[in-house]
Amino acid sequence: MSHPQIVKVPLEGRAYDIVIGAGLIARAGAEIAARRKGLRVAVVTDETVAGLHLQPLLASLGEAGIDASPLVLPAGEKTKRFEELIRVCDHILESRLERGDAVVALGGGVIGDLSGFAAGIVRRGMRFIQVPTSLLAQVDSSVGGKTGINTAHGKNLIGVFHQPDLVLADTDVLDTLSKREFRAGYAEMAKYGLIDKPDFFEWLERNWQAVFAGGPERAQAIAISCQAKADVVIADERESGARALLNLGHTFGHALEAATGYDSRRLVHGEGVAIGMVLAYEFSARMNLASPDDAHRVSRHLRAVGLPTRLSDIEGGLPTTDMLMDHIGQDKKVQRGALTFILTRGIGASFIADDVPPSEVFRFLEEKRAS
Amino acid sequence: MSHPQIVKVPLEGRAYDIVIGAGLIARAGAEIAARRKGLRVAVVTDETVAGLHLQPLLASLGEAGIDASPLVLPAGEKTKRFEELIRVCDHILESRLERGDAVVALGGGVIGDLSGFAAGIVRRGMRFIQVPTSLLAQVDSSVGGKTGINTAHGKNLIGVFHQPDLVLADTDVLDTLSKREFRAGYAEMAKYGLIDKPDFFEWLERNWQAVFAGGPERAQAIAISCQAKADVVIADERESGARALLNLGHTFGHALEAATGYDSRRLVHGEGVAIGMVLAYEFSARMNLASPDDAHRVSRHLRAVGLPTRLSDIEGGLPTTDMLMDHIGQDKKVQRGALTFILTRGIGASFIADDVPPSEVFRFLEEKRAS
Ligand SMILES: NC(=O)c1ccc[n+]([C@@H]2O[C@H](COP(=O)([O-])OP(=O)(O)OC[C@H]3O[C@@H](n4cnc5c(N)ncnc54)[C@H](O)[C@@H]3O)[C@@H](O)[C@H]2O)c1
Ligand SMILES: NC(=O)c1ccc[n+]([C@@H]2O[C@H](COP(=O)([O-])OP(=O)(O)OC[C@H]3O[C@@H](n4cnc5c(N)ncnc54)[C@H](O)[C@@H]3O)[C@@H](O)[C@H]2O)c1
Ligand SMILES: [Zn+2]
Ligand SMILES: [Zn+2]
Repeated sequence: MSHPQIVKVPLEGRAYDIVIGAGLIARAGAEIAARRKGLRVAVVTDETVAGLHLQPLLASLGEAGIDASPLVLPAGEKTKRFEELIRVCDHILESRLERGDAVVALGGGVIGDLSGFAAGIVRRGMRFIQVPTSLLAQVDSSVGGKTGINTAHGKNLIGVFHQPDLVLADTDVLDTLSKREFRAGYAEMAKYGLIDKPDFFEWLERNWQAVFAGGPERAQAIAISCQAKADVVIADERESGARALLNLGHTFGHALEAATGYDSRRLVHGEGVAIGMVLAYEFSARMNLASPDDAHRVSRHLRAVGLPTRLSDIEGGLPTTDMLMDHIGQDKKVQRGALTFILTRGIGASFIADDVPPSEVFRFLEEKRAS
Repeated sequence: MSHPQIVKVPLEGRAYDIVIGAGLIARAGAEIAARRKGLRVAVVTDETVAGLHLQPLLASLGEAGIDASPLVLPAGEKTKRFEELIRVCDHILESRLERGDAVVALGGGVIGDLSGFAAGIVRRGMRFIQVPTSLLAQVDSSVGGKTGINTAHGKNLIGVFHQPDLVLADTDVLDTLSKREFRAGYAEMAKYGLIDKPDFFEWLERNWQAVFAGGPERAQAIAISCQAKADVVIADERESGARALLNLGHTFGHALEAATGYDSRRLVHGEGVAIGMVLAYEFSARMNLASPDDAHRVSRHLRAVGLPTRLSDIEGGLPTTDMLMDHIGQDKKVQRGALTFILTRGIGASFIADDVPPSEVFRFLEEKRAS
């Protein structure tokens, strides 16, 4: 077993470690106990992940003498809603956990976002430990402290900032992840390259097969991604500025997810982001900010790994442009009238544009729908 | 109209004003607009308060050019629950408020706690303005940033810390408050004296009739109370230490509220606190920490203003001691095994005791139930 890598997130007063490596679930109890004695935990997970990884985690916690009460929720984006939030809160309270005890999220971004939100509001904030099991959760959602749920009005509209106390990313569990989910997480990895790491994007273009196959390239790409995210979060924890760059591809992506009813058979988050990033590059080219070649390069790479890159890649009827614009208008990234988008001047040269005319976006989307 | 008093809460990066005075609702629009231009608001209130004070507030906001969408909820403690929280969140989102817009709470502590919680979680935190209309809300719940709801497991078990951006305490609106509710708020004012302001408690013993009658003594007592609370909050915003002193009378009080099903016909919060403070003084005397004379002095004063001070003052059957202990055990103030209570060495000499044996509390309550 290779030595785990540790990415430090040195937030003032709430510094925490992201531990990345093979076999971490089997060592989770020891990793937690080494950092904090005598705490009890509630483990929240989904049905799919429970069948694969819950018993080893509970065994590991048990060996370390950590009392753990599990809660298994349905898998899928629909679980990120108020009804399930109430279930998680009730479970934590029924388990009689105290303020210093912890909620453990074992699963993908859905379980992480939902149970992190619960950990942030029960007793006005409990400890929180992430054990991310999807690639997306390992490289993105488990880092940075954003938690939340969706409502009929849009994605992630309700939530809190609540930093984890520890993240344990076991790279072995990715072996049971479907290819499609792996690709979705890969889109977020590629995003870090496209934001401000052109060398990393180039490295991915050359090494993506090894990343998909597992082994050292995979762990390395995950660690680079966690570090990239952590750097942005440290600089701007509450998204008053630079953190918004992490939304590259997400304004379009969220609108597509909303317009397809958060139906994971049609579109999962990372797929929306993949299409959204291509749209952001194309829109930037269209606004004469970037070269169309960059947009081609991005879509070529994402297609190569098997990700959707066009509106027409979405199965089922396409949402109307009005519907998409409506979702974009309710997006958190909106500021009075003009739209805020992450646009780009090239590979690894993204920036926050807060003066995007909605009419331009509308025209662009109309064209894209027709093409 | 007398000049309003301003208590400053200089929290780092989130400093805010508590403005206290007559006629403030009629000036609310101007007060808000003077501090922030161009924001829109959702006004949350309850049916009772809406009938009395909503139109003047909306008129005042309208005059100042502030777009406001009202939401009127049922009055009473039962409104502090998940279902109503969801309604408030939906209302904010339907009103299409953005991150920089504000939720305005017009009402007592119930409306303040509930809508402050919603303001803390919609878009991961919006602006929040308190217009407290009950005495309890003016001297206590509107200051300090604690928000939350109740669950079947206990009071305020779910919530966030979310500081207001402004508090407007219009002392005129207290004229429409029932005598019973005024007394309940008075219990929290007396609490500040009992915690660490013996002179203020003595002043209240002499001036309580003038405070109840209105006029300068009332506004003065409110301002002293706000300042007292603000001082504690500044020293310990997240209740890692000294802030717990504000819970004087509350561990018992919350247990009584829970055991009477949060039924305001039987017990309102401030009444629970009044009984709880007397119990805290009596229990302290029993533990040989304070003189029984102090307990008598506290109960004499609270009885004089018309507050309940004994378990037997609660109408309907008394909860069993087991039931009370169970609620005390679920209280946020519990730390592994030993109970944390605010006890006292005398008038204005309260302290945090974190080693109270549950068995002593049980025995004490058994006796009290019998007496
Ligand atoms: N908080 C943040 O900063 C942040 C950032 C990005 C995305 N997100 C959120 O994350 C969510 C998407 O995360 P996701 O893609 O992990 O979704 P997910 O949690 O639904 O997981 C995807 C699917 O993979 C399954 N799965 C997870 N781990 C597995 C494993 N090891 N083996 C087999 N199956 C496994 C799950 O059961 C699920 O069916 C979205 O809700 C998105 O909004 C949050
Ligand atoms: N957040 C905190 O720090 C904090 C502190 C103390 C108490 N609280 C909470 O506050 C709540 C109690 O507050 P409360 O006593 O204000 O309860 P409340 O909000 O229920 O108000 C009491 C009653 O008075 C009515 N009312 C309010 N203002 C009125 C007015 N001007 N004229 C006529 N009627 C009026 C209300 O409609 C209600 O029926 C509890 O839920 C308690 O947990 C919170
Ligand atoms: Zn994402
Ligand atoms: Zn109180």
